[in-house]
Amino acid sequence: MASLPHPLSSLSIHETNRARDLVLNLHPGTVLDFRATFLLEPPKAQVTKFLELEHAGRLAPDDPRPARLAQVRYDVIGGSKAAEYHESVIDLGEARRVSHQIIGTEHHAGLTVFELYRLVECVKNSALFQEKLKAISLPPGFELVVEPWPYGGPDEADGQTRFFQALCFGRNAASGNPDSNFYAYPIPLIPIMDARKNEIVRIDEPATGGQGDPLSGRTHKPAVLDHCRAAEYVPELLPSGTRKDLKPLTVQQPEGPSFTVSDSNLVEWQKWRMRVTFNPREGAVLHDIRYDGRDVLYRLSISDMTVPYADPRPPFHRKQAFDFGDGALGNNVNNLTLGCDCLGVIKYFDGVLTKADGSAEVTSKVICLHEQDNGINWKHNNWRTGRGVVTRRRELVLQFIITLANYEYIFAFKFDQAAGIAVEARATGIVSVVNIDAGKTAPWGNVVSPGALAQNHQHLFCVRIDAAVDGHRNTLVQEESLPVAMDACTNPSGNYYEVRQTPISTSAGVDLAPFNNRTFKVQNMSKRNPVSGKPVGYKIATPPTQLLLADPNSVQARRALFAQHHMWVTKFKDDELYAGGRYTLQSRREVGGVADAAARNDAVLDEDIVVWSVFGLTHNPRVEDWPVMPVEMLQVDMTPSDFFTENPALDVPSSADIGSKTVADGCCA
Amino acid sequence: MASLPHPLSSLSIHETNRARDLVLNLHPGTVLDFRATFLLEPPKAQVTKFLELEHAGRLAPDDPRPARLAQVRYDVIGGSKAAEYHESVIDLGEARRVSHQIIGTEHHAGLTVFELYRLVECVKNSALFQEKLKAISLPPGFELVVEPWPYGGPDEADGQTRFFQALCFGRNAASGNPDSNFYAYPIPLIPIMDARKNEIVRIDEPATGGQGDPLSGRTHKPAVLDHCRAAEYVPELLPSGTRKDLKPLTVQQPEGPSFTVSDSNLVEWQKWRMRVTFNPREGAVLHDIRYDGRDVLYRLSISDMTVPYADPRPPFHRKQAFDFGDGALGNNVNNLTLGCDCLGVIKYFDGVLTKADGSAEVTSKVICLHEQDNGINWKHNNWRTGRGVVTRRRELVLQFIITLANYEYIFAFKFDQAAGIAVEARATGIVSVVNIDAGKTAPWGNVVSPGALAQNHQHLFCVRIDAAVDGHRNTLVQEESLPVAMDACTNPSGNYYEVRQTPISTSAGVDLAPFNNRTFKVQNMSKRNPVSGKPVGYKIATPPTQLLLADPNSVQARRALFAQHHMWVTKFKDDELYAGGRYTLQSRREVGGVADAAARNDAVLDEDIVVWSVFGLTHNPRVEDWPVMPVEMLQVDMTPSDFFTENPALDVPSSADIGSKTVADGCCA
Repeated sequence: MASLPHPLSSLSIHETNRARDLVLNLHPGTVLDFRATFLLEPPKAQVTKFLELEHAGRLAPDDPRPARLAQVRYDVIGGSKAAEYHESVIDLGEARRVSHQIIGTEHHAGLTVFELYRLVECVKNSALFQEKLKAISLPPGFELVVEPWPYGGPDEADGQTRFFQALCFGRNAASGNPDSNFYAYPIPLIPIMDARKNEIVRIDEPATGGQGDPLSGRTHKPAVLDHCRAAEYVPELLPSGTRKDLKPLTVQQPEGPSFTVSDSNLVEWQKWRMRVTFNPREGAVLHDIRYDGRDVLYRLSISDMTVPYADPRPPFHRKQAFDFGDGALGNNVNNLTLGCDCLGVIKYFDGVLTKADGSAEVTSKVICLHEQDNGINWKHNNWRTGRGVVTRRRELVLQFIITLANYEYIFAFKFDQAAGIAVEARATGIVSVVNIDAGKTAPWGNVVSPGALAQNHQHLFCVRIDAAVDGHRNTLVQEESLPVAMDACTNPSGNYYEVRQTPISTSAGVDLAPFNNRTFKVQNMSKRNPVSGKPVGYKIATPPTQLLLADPNSVQARRALFAQHHMWVTKFKDDELYAGGRYTLQSRREVGGVADAAARNDAVLDEDIVVWSVFGLTHNPRVEDWPVMPVEMLQVDMTPSDFFTENPALDVPSSADIGSKTVADGCCA
Repeated sequence: MASLPHPLSSLSIHETNRARDLVLNLHPGTVLDFRATFLLEPPKAQVTKFLELEHAGRLAPDDPRPARLAQVRYDVIGGSKAAEYHESVIDLGEARRVSHQIIGTEHHAGLTVFELYRLVECVKNSALFQEKLKAISLPPGFELVVEPWPYGGPDEADGQTRFFQALCFGRNAASGNPDSNFYAYPIPLIPIMDARKNEIVRIDEPATGGQGDPLSGRTHKPAVLDHCRAAEYVPELLPSGTRKDLKPLTVQQPEGPSFTVSDSNLVEWQKWRMRVTFNPREGAVLHDIRYDGRDVLYRLSISDMTVPYADPRPPFHRKQAFDFGDGALGNNVNNLTLGCDCLGVIKYFDGVLTKADGSAEVTSKVICLHEQDNGINWKHNNWRTGRGVVTRRRELVLQFIITLANYEYIFAFKFDQAAGIAVEARATGIVSVVNIDAGKTAPWGNVVSPGALAQNHQHLFCVRIDAAVDGHRNTLVQEESLPVAMDACTNPSGNYYEVRQTPISTSAGVDLAPFNNRTFKVQNMSKRNPVSGKPVGYKIATPPTQLLLADPNSVQARRALFAQHHMWVTKFKDDELYAGGRYTLQSRREVGGVADAAARNDAVLDEDIVVWSVFGLTHNPRVEDWPVMPVEMLQVDMTPSDFFTENPALDVPSSADIGSKTVADGCCA
């Protein structure tokens, strides 16, 4: 049995190559350009049957297993027609195609890293671009850097052409350091590539003015970088070097970590058990998350995110990335040898990606797993006896990091010993800047370096929570704490407040109301807590942050409907995973995303529900965010609520009792 | 000069005893009962002059120094009159009293631990109480436990009498373990002591019913604890012991910590510099907080907090603690040998308390100081070169912990390398429970253990931030990010949003509006950031949590006006430190608190301002909070906003570069 891959495990190198071969055989006489190949998770109905047996320890070698399915995304280039984008699903066990779609030109396939490389080449080779560049005089020793971007939401006139845009910068090649920070030198030229022709078809020339200047039109001088200033971040280029007074701090785990990893992707730690997979669309995904033998979540993932920019000057309205949906995630996940840099004992997981020819390759160390200490977990002192009992809060962290051009996101799934789960997003990296004339400021951004305007923008994340609280039939319940007027009968002293619960009966987007202490719980109405008599549940605490600001009629807003409610509840449907829809690249509206799923008006009382948690950061940059910003942190917390009959961390031993050492006092003068 | 205490240092043992002696001399022929003696901080005008010289390194031994002042709080008991509460201020250098007040009976002095001990004795010796107790049959082997509480907000009929109340529990003495958890066995008797007579004057008998039962009246049987169940938390009493699979995790700092402590209370770390003091009213207080030679805050403290309970049944409306203002803090600060249990190298600070005779004694290790790692601080990967630069986020933590009867609060002041400051509150300990009849539930709480109803309540904290952003003339500015309708002229694509700033011109309470991304910044209008041209500032991010729920006309609400806005800005006034007022114990309304300060309608543009940050937790207990709850965490963040000309953590070396070790991979199967 160990030789058969688990239904909730990523495709292996072998499986991925086999899927490629099968697809190639299905398209004889044509050239295929492969975009992505990864596991299509089996239908939940099949998986849950399998898991029931597995959890019960009753899985027999000849029990039926869900089929291993590969979804293969590729362009068909040969033949007389223009290139077409195809999606096939291959049953690897039966070596046959079970689904095949040719995607219409109203949708765009997710981008590949190869398209981005082509964009850079095209820009450099474009006569049109070179002509424009002549009008700009770069400082001596500077060279051009081309930064590929998705095209964002297209204008009406753009039709269905597949475009990419590039931001341009100057790099001080004379510095002799390839990591000299070119972002400090933004060039106001945005070449646009027609991706089917591999040709630069237009050069947008954004304005460089400020407050009071018109939204378009050239105001910059030819020496457009002369008022810019170096802003280095690699240590050897820092004018004063690095600070010298930080002493080392090391985490020792002499007996090793408290987790185990078996069956290639099964993680067990402190009564938790889950499987971890990697795919190029969502990064790390967790499956079959259980605590002490009880189901909590069927699946947990970062579903999508969008980053709309608020500079009103054309073409900056098209600066809007979907960093998951646009397709670049797989190739932009950090290989953590480059700097995961976690403390303690770390276990890494590799991923599988595909080359343009469809063959599989390992991308190493894309997920890291480690334990961390997060302060006191619980404590009580009995003042009568002087006895204090205190435990530390140990957390298990599964982390992955993506770099999208200038910017970094660090995502962590965190598990604690009190049966809590958190999904943390940290934003760091280099804020996106555009050129601004010397001495000017602008209402849509902040001058973070001379000549560099960091534009205001938002980061809106969506975490998909496929709940399974003690089973798959769950209900999302809104709870509020509401004031009650003083009244002789029910509230004679005015101190009472009402806790009001409202189950959500139909799939919908719902919003937070923190001043009502509005919280949402996923409850299993058929299981009652034997102590409190209330349904067992988990609370989902989404941070009460600002939603998408763009005008609802804007393309920015229409293509990111998911970012317009704090939480969505939908009825589970197989393969409905992406909040912004399957095709976000260059979309004009969100299609097949969570808003469409909610619009089915499914009954969601006591059903297999999915909860989508939306939160974000309105990021009006400060000078301190330059040149690399200190992390901004946000997290969704999921905590048991009448799920257990006592504090599930009650049996955690104190740190001292397990031999963790404290070095006290006398350490300094 | 080193022999003279710094103006911002706590009173020494010697100074405290000297203040006592001077007060005793001023009251010949009377008996004094001392309540508290601690530093009265010198007028800010004097201190800032001193600090200017100190910061400039120009302090000469014969420069004028602010007087060392002791505030002494005591009851005058001798003589023919009833005991009176006095407050004297003693100039220790001049050995004379500079202020003397006899506090009217409309106010109550903060409680002392001696009063609480007397309460326990009084209850046990009270015939009235013993008579009531006879009607209750405790299980065999059980004994009475009396838990002292402040009286809360009195009823009209209570007049100005000083009362204390006690909650009663049964303890399984037969367990043979003095730490067997008595809270699991609540007895529905609340004896009330007249504190001037030291006599139990009344026994309140709260109802034990639930949903649908009347708010008062006896429904319980004599065997009122028979349906209760043991709920132990000390490891040796846990039925299944502690979990065995947690491996040790130790922090090593082979070269010692990165901080230094000198001049007894001057902490320096990573460009930060501050002084730390301890007093029995606020716990740890930080002073003269500077980063890289620039003023940030003059003073930072937890000002007060209130915990109102929402059970409408009399007398539970009087369950409302002010855990700082009521006076018990000093004696309830944990001596951290009992379980600070931090990892790494720890420096402890002692405090000074006074006995009933006014003599000083050391309370050891009431504040701990250490460094911690908090994940990635900033990162950027250059995908062109494959070069990743990543730094960890090291934090300096000053922590103190208080135990108020059943409950624990852990407060931490945290400093990071990107010039951020956070004030964190963690709530843990044992939730307050009352007896509930078997099989019943109630809308004002949750049954967390058979017979034990944990009542709904709130924790509302106020952090006092005496700002000094690049000097003492500051302005609080509200900033919002607001949608702008699509419009051909100013917002042609609908992606623009407006960032609107509104300075607060008059002292006031203001509220959050997270969906407008409303944030508050303390700015220094006379200092412009040379890069952005904007005023230098610090953003204060208060968590957008629910405010006080009690009816505005209730005593609970009237005595906690501070808890009814998210933020207050007032003009600085010497010795105006306490959000809930100087006398919260048994208050009926907030007097001299932040609401009164704001009501002066002071001009606060470009003035010496104080910002008060209010946040809280509406705590409707879950079964998982029993018997000791896992921490709930909240924090206020203060981050520079155009205060610096770049990321202040840019020069932090990578962990690897300073020798912190990562143990990678191969750790598990």
